[in-house]
Amino acid sequence: MNFASDNTAGISPEILAALAAANDGAVGSYGADPITARLEAKLADLFEHEVAVFPVATGTAANALALAAVTPPWGAVLCHPQAHIACDEANAPEFYTGGAKLVPVAGADGKLAAADLAGLLPGDLGNVHHAQPAAISLTQATECGTVYRPAEIAEIATLAHRHGLAVHMDGARFANALVHLDASPAELTWRAGVDVLSFGATKNGALGAEAIVFFDPARARELPFRRKRAGHLFSKMRFLSAQLDAYVTDGLWLRNARHANAAAARLAEGLTALPGVRLRHPVEANELFVELPEAMIAGLFEAGAQFHRWEGAASTCVRLVTAWNTADADVAVFLATASRLASA
Amino acid sequence: MNFASDNTAGISPEILAALAAANDGAVGSYGADPITARLEAKLADLFEHEVAVFPVATGTAANALALAAVTPPWGAVLCHPQAHIACDEANAPEFYTGGAKLVPVAGADGKLAAADLAGLLPGDLGNVHHAQPAAISLTQATECGTVYRPAEIAEIATLAHRHGLAVHMDGARFANALVHLDASPAELTWRAGVDVLSFGATKNGALGAEAIVFFDPARARELPFRRKRAGHLFSKMRFLSAQLDAYVTDGLWLRNARHANAAAARLAEGLTALPGVRLRHPVEANELFVELPEAMIAGLFEAGAQFHRWEGAASTCVRLVTAWNTADADVAVFLATASRLASA
Amino acid sequence: MNFASDNTAGISPEILAALAAANDGAVGSYGADPITARLEAKLADLFEHEVAVFPVATGTAANALALAAVTPPWGAVLCHPQAHIACDEANAPEFYTGGAKLVPVAGADGKLAAADLAGLLPGDLGNVHHAQPAAISLTQATECGTVYRPAEIAEIATLAHRHGLAVHMDGARFANALVHLDASPAELTWRAGVDVLSFGATKNGALGAEAIVFFDPARARELPFRRKRAGHLFSKMRFLSAQLDAYVTDGLWLRNARHANAAAARLAEGLTALPGVRLRHPVEANELFVELPEAMIAGLFEAGAQFHRWEGAASTCVRLVTAWNTADADVAVFLATASRLASA
Amino acid sequence: MNFASDNTAGISPEILAALAAANDGAVGSYGADPITARLEAKLADLFEHEVAVFPVATGTAANALALAAVTPPWGAVLCHPQAHIACDEANAPEFYTGGAKLVPVAGADGKLAAADLAGLLPGDLGNVHHAQPAAISLTQATECGTVYRPAEIAEIATLAHRHGLAVHMDGARFANALVHLDASPAELTWRAGVDVLSFGATKNGALGAEAIVFFDPARARELPFRRKRAGHLFSKMRFLSAQLDAYVTDGLWLRNARHANAAAARLAEGLTALPGVRLRHPVEANELFVELPEAMIAGLFEAGAQFHRWEGAASTCVRLVTAWNTADADVAVFLATASRLASA
Repeated sequence: MNFASDNTAGISPEILAALAAANDGAVGSYGADPITARLEAKLADLFEHEVAVFPVATGTAANALALAAVTPPWGAVLCHPQAHIACDEANAPEFYTGGAKLVPVAGADGKLAAADLAGLLPGDLGNVHHAQPAAISLTQATECGTVYRPAEIAEIATLAHRHGLAVHMDGARFANALVHLDASPAELTWRAGVDVLSFGATKNGALGAEAIVFFDPARARELPFRRKRAGHLFSKMRFLSAQLDAYVTDGLWLRNARHANAAAARLAEGLTALPGVRLRHPVEANELFVELPEAMIAGLFEAGAQFHRWEGAASTCVRLVTAWNTADADVAVFLATASRLASA
Repeated sequence: MNFASDNTAGISPEILAALAAANDGAVGSYGADPITARLEAKLADLFEHEVAVFPVATGTAANALALAAVTPPWGAVLCHPQAHIACDEANAPEFYTGGAKLVPVAGADGKLAAADLAGLLPGDLGNVHHAQPAAISLTQATECGTVYRPAEIAEIATLAHRHGLAVHMDGARFANALVHLDASPAELTWRAGVDVLSFGATKNGALGAEAIVFFDPARARELPFRRKRAGHLFSKMRFLSAQLDAYVTDGLWLRNARHANAAAARLAEGLTALPGVRLRHPVEANELFVELPEAMIAGLFEAGAQFHRWEGAASTCVRLVTAWNTADADVAVFLATASRLASA
Repeated sequence: MNFASDNTAGISPEILAALAAANDGAVGSYGADPITARLEAKLADLFEHEVAVFPVATGTAANALALAAVTPPWGAVLCHPQAHIACDEANAPEFYTGGAKLVPVAGADGKLAAADLAGLLPGDLGNVHHAQPAAISLTQATECGTVYRPAEIAEIATLAHRHGLAVHMDGARFANALVHLDASPAELTWRAGVDVLSFGATKNGALGAEAIVFFDPARARELPFRRKRAGHLFSKMRFLSAQLDAYVTDGLWLRNARHANAAAARLAEGLTALPGVRLRHPVEANELFVELPEAMIAGLFEAGAQFHRWEGAASTCVRLVTAWNTADADVAVFLATASRLASA
Repeated sequence: MNFASDNTAGISPEILAALAAANDGAVGSYGADPITARLEAKLADLFEHEVAVFPVATGTAANALALAAVTPPWGAVLCHPQAHIACDEANAPEFYTGGAKLVPVAGADGKLAAADLAGLLPGDLGNVHHAQPAAISLTQATECGTVYRPAEIAEIATLAHRHGLAVHMDGARFANALVHLDASPAELTWRAGVDVLSFGATKNGALGAEAIVFFDPARARELPFRRKRAGHLFSKMRFLSAQLDAYVTDGLWLRNARHANAAAARLAEGLTALPGVRLRHPVEANELFVELPEAMIAGLFEAGAQFHRWEGAASTCVRLVTAWNTADADVAVFLATASRLASA
């Protein structure tokens, strides 16, 4: 019963098999291999758009490199206060941009609202004393387990572009958002105005693979240099590309995300039926933030469930995260335990 | 007949198997897993010393993080002009250190000589106008395919320590050096005065795994923060650790390196028997730098051999690199082809 | 009638005279001159404490260098959202620290409150994913024209030190705060727990001179290197030191600040007597933030007064800043004009 | 008898007077003042070309900001090993560029030679593993006291531009070079292909003032942000601009430089007439590098002369620097003393 994070899960069998299959013969290093070439073509098909694709191994690398590509050192990135880039990356965006500032903009359920952003723009554009608004970063699905609708993205992107800002999407859980909305990759990205996407796979079944995807390759011109000087260019690149290739082949990524989302939905449904339980946010992806009675939390821990209290050691708000391989039995046992504890 | 680089080779079967074996159940992320714990213990045994170990995925990351741990932004790293950190990492050391300077110090066969370094130290230590000498970086095996003897390392390290400099070893091909000397890991590192080692595995059979190894854990205090903010902390760390664990288990790393070195030695022996062929440097690891007649180069390319001219498109000095899985047949065919071309 | 900024004023005659006096003969460069030595001794006397003193030419340089001395690249500086370091220095603190984060902590009248800070500490100290709280920065006098009492500083500093954070004070208007409180320099700094002070002189009569003052010289060990590599080490240092020397000689700095504060107090008194006028914050230094009727604003501009609307072109909150040389007549004319417009 | 550095001299009376004259009334801050506007116009006249001008207080700031404007973090700046930017700026160029590399290219008498540079270009342009050649930096007059002819600059600049590199000139002693050649500012800069000039005044009579001069204003678009975030934007900018304005008014800069050069020439003439004296480099500006008998060095020190041994405490090569105000008597006494010591 591990609901601590989707990072605690392992590798999808299909992806593991792809690593073995890629291990055949000698191929060009640093991306000069056929799997990497094939991946870029596949992602162009998937997104129905010309793309420039840069595989890296971690989400933090993907985000920090993507933001550095669109934000000067004296720039500002507008993002939600709970965004991973703001809270959980140990100043990686600041490091990679050369010192840009992340400006937190509060919003309900982990989402930025265009109306709030509008009040901040154009801000101090052109005034040399102030950080220059350069990008808006959206997390899809959000850190609260919610999902931006295409129209919400478009409204923000229109505002951003009107003022010359780029739109970055942190898609560490992009698949989870996509299957929730039953939308196409294009609808959630370039059609809505996204300029650069951190296309996550690690949390959804890869060993460690993310793709930075630019929809305007001109914006990616410096990325090869940025990636290399950051030590994120793999010599045996084929093994990053093979993960991503398998990930988007035959709908694996969608199946994995649907599995995780369904488990989260079942947890939400089961828990909210119990007294004293309250969801903090709508459950739209694979994360629940839920207030539980303290006795229920203690009992669940005692029963061996793994998860995190969300706001410190005394918090009764907990986070539950499901994964591509969350066992139905684990969900059932968790809910049965909670139910038993509720009626105790 | 791919002698272009040891990066073009794939993954050792034992390491691939270790990835599959590690893919069992949910474990703590970001290094809080049993394989990572086991790895640190194993490396302490291997090096016969307390160590602080930080797995990362690329050699550039390992080098840049290690150097940043021992060099302030106003510092200087003394290294060979052909060092990978100086030539092949796109300013990654400068990025990670926050702007330190790499000072090239020429030396025969890719090696720094203590006598040359002595003339540069203490240099301008304490003078605020000048970069402050902070570290000496040795590459083992060197970029010329040669190997430092323990006494050579010790002489340099003694000098470094006398002036307060740290000693870094770029061990991307550490195994190749080790088996050439038939030395112990301790003899080549802390016993000779090395403070921090980039312990490479990728070139010698891993998918993408290197360990930064500190012999004085106090020096590693900031490394966890540095690694995370650089995007080099893997969420599914067990899969980095599993590669390194398999690498040093049952002598795999030594077998792989012996295989590569032996292939290089056979190439060297066979080629130097031919007229018009001259080795640039002694062949002590898995790289040859060799001057060949132009017709031989052209003929080898025509026969399908892959390798690089070393000093530009017109150069008749070529680099041949062997790997953990270089086929005996490829060596034989390459030599036979060269021999045929020599007598043509 | 220039109330736009204290930066629009010129140089105090005493300081100009000191520049001329310093222009005598050849002296050692880069600080190896008698005036710089004398300055350090004088500031030690003034602060009644051992100090390490680093003259620089701008407040942004002083703040950014001071913060970099106490904040690692993966660190966080807690400060007021309106702090100069957060709003008006174009990411200089991020640049100098190598990418640290400024964390805005709201508080009334431009001041941080210990109670609010207590809720944020120790924060995520030790957790590698999060920016590490490293410093608290106070602005004295604040950007709202208010002043921290020694007890307020001490409460914040005690909290900071309990969690291992350093306390920085941006004293661009330190003299204005000091004379308002009739306190000693020691009471407002190290006795209350301040670790490093940006001791401003430019706004209060210098050409361009600030001193970074460390009360624990051990913390300043890297500062000489940081200052030089930032291009802030003056070759003809005597002329920076001479400004600061004259500034603290014979109480010039206090006279200048008293003059500016008195002018601000007269403006506040006169304006608040008028209908439709409301102060945003107490007037404790040389800045007023005041809501005026739109017709009064327009009329004052028409009469030639110079000042800024504070929150955009449509704002009826204006900022008035007085300086060491604000003419009594300008204050009188401004108030008479406002009074006439109020009764119109 | 201070020949230690031109930095030990004070301020030209005309420039001191200009500071006093500028101290009149309240003017716009941060460069929005009439003196700064006038300066830009004057420099456009002086250089016979459109210019974008950025006053800063130190040469290191001017160089580092100029280089950062034309060199990406993954770039390389080719320069002489003895260049001030390489040796004497404590990694400031690396800091400001975000980690670019300075590549030393040896050349006689402190000068880069086009033939040597040609062998290094285009280098590894486009290869992601290598620092990307981005700029060539020339020092005029050089650190050896020699001067580039316009044709030498043009040859280097043509090569640079052919490969897409920018040409930076460190003109800390630009005036000294100019008067030696009796050339126009245009001939030594944009006509010869210089893209950006660090136009020095501090060493030649200013308090602390240099101008970054771009001959293509499009290249300067980011400079205002770079200067501010580096803390090099003066609030009371008029006092930087006033120094530079006086410097180029009525030929002050040329008179000062002629005076310094003439003193250097007299020293050279007098010393080379003595036995055992040998110039290291031609004396073309205001610096001499000269080998003296040890007894002469000791005797000169004993007589109160101030100057530096050039290559360590045991070196018999000394550096003598003259300044805008070097007294004829000092030159005469120095030579008489040397002559006496030579015949002793």
